[in-house]
Amino acid sequence: MTITITAFEKSPDGGKGLARDMRVRWALEEVNQPYQVRPVSFQAMKKPAHLGIQPFGQIPTYEEGDLVLFESGAIVLHIAGCHPGLLPTDANARARAIAWMFAALGTIEPPIFELATAKFLEVEKPWSKERLPLIQDRIRNRLKQLSAWLGGTDWLDGPFSAGDLMMVHVLQRLKPSGLLDEFRNLADYVARGEARPAYKRAFAAQLAANSPARNARA
Amino acid sequence: MTITITAFEKSPDGGKGLARDMRVRWALEEVNQPYQVRPVSFQAMKKPAHLGIQPFGQIPTYEEGDLVLFESGAIVLHIAGCHPGLLPTDANARARAIAWMFAALGTIEPPIFELATAKFLEVEKPWSKERLPLIQDRIRNRLKQLSAWLGGTDWLDGPFSAGDLMMVHVLQRLKPSGLLDEFRNLADYVARGEARPAYKRAFAAQLAANSPARNARA
Repeated sequence: MTITITAFEKSPDGGKGLARDMRVRWALEEVNQPYQVRPVSFQAMKKPAHLGIQPFGQIPTYEEGDLVLFESGAIVLHIAGCHPGLLPTDANARARAIAWMFAALGTIEPPIFELATAKFLEVEKPWSKERLPLIQDRIRNRLKQLSAWLGGTDWLDGPFSAGDLMMVHVLQRLKPSGLLDEFRNLADYVARGEARPAYKRAFAAQLAANSPARNARA
Repeated sequence: MTITITAFEKSPDGGKGLARDMRVRWALEEVNQPYQVRPVSFQAMKKPAHLGIQPFGQIPTYEEGDLVLFESGAIVLHIAGCHPGLLPTDANARARAIAWMFAALGTIEPPIFELATAKFLEVEKPWSKERLPLIQDRIRNRLKQLSAWLGGTDWLDGPFSAGDLMMVHVLQRLKPSGLLDEFRNLADYVARGEARPAYKRAFAAQLAANSPARNARA
């Protein structure tokens, strides 16, 4: 069955790979599944047709036959459940890899996203400059714990898994802040994820979709 | 095998059921599995013994034989995968119920938690009063979309599932803000969750563990 995902018609990051379709593209590349992309404009994302498959007007979505999914975590977990390569076969190890997916999305991403919100949505507010260090310290606290856990190992819990895929993508958003570079093993961890052939193919695909030439044609 | 979970020795909410062990207790009650609780003090949560099973120094954790899990989402998903009652058997419906778990934790909870952070950690800051309406509007925006999706149905996607369990618990934190009451169907949805016998048993258990008599003995 053909897999179709949605992505921004024009990603706000211009192709840096930070949009959440990147996670799904990367997962599909890791398990060698072809897919089609349906670009969605910001206007179309808030219209009933898209809200019917993504209640919060976001991307990505995932369609495969009768299945319509939303939430990048759920989509990646579904892909990982259907094809070998992203989750261990041992039941306990599998549950732990899934725990790292939830940790990436529920524990690490929220303060990182709060920094993005503060920088983009509240940058003109009088408190913006004074408040940033508070958020940065919340992120630093989490990174310190994550760095201590990772130690000198390559991945979070055994071989590379969907948990690492999610965590690497979540951490990438921190690059411009300099916070990631405060933790050498985390910066190396992200670099290890980015060095994977599947990551590179996924990154190239989203970049091509956001290239100026492509958008000029659109 | 005996199931052991961790919970706050003294919950910051004094037994209102907002701590994340409530989700796990509720899930275990839904599938009729007995469990033991190991209370953890704030001091012990930041020590190596606990960090070895919960890298971010939080509760709950879940231990069952050789399996050690963290992240309430992963724990509830594991419970739902091992016992009937929290996920549909149809594969596509199951994937969608899991999508709602991720939506609760990744899309709905972060702005709600940001409100809690603003009220508790930043309440003394000069921007506190002016900033609250911005966060409330972000929450309102998500509730509006969630309310539109739910419409007049009882649960988010077919019968009650682990997705509803997570969403109800995430929304409960909004009660004192009054935001939930702006959306009648969401307030009713939360009340429907709270009316479930399994919820009531779980709530009573965490309340008993946080009662003054219990803490006086501790």
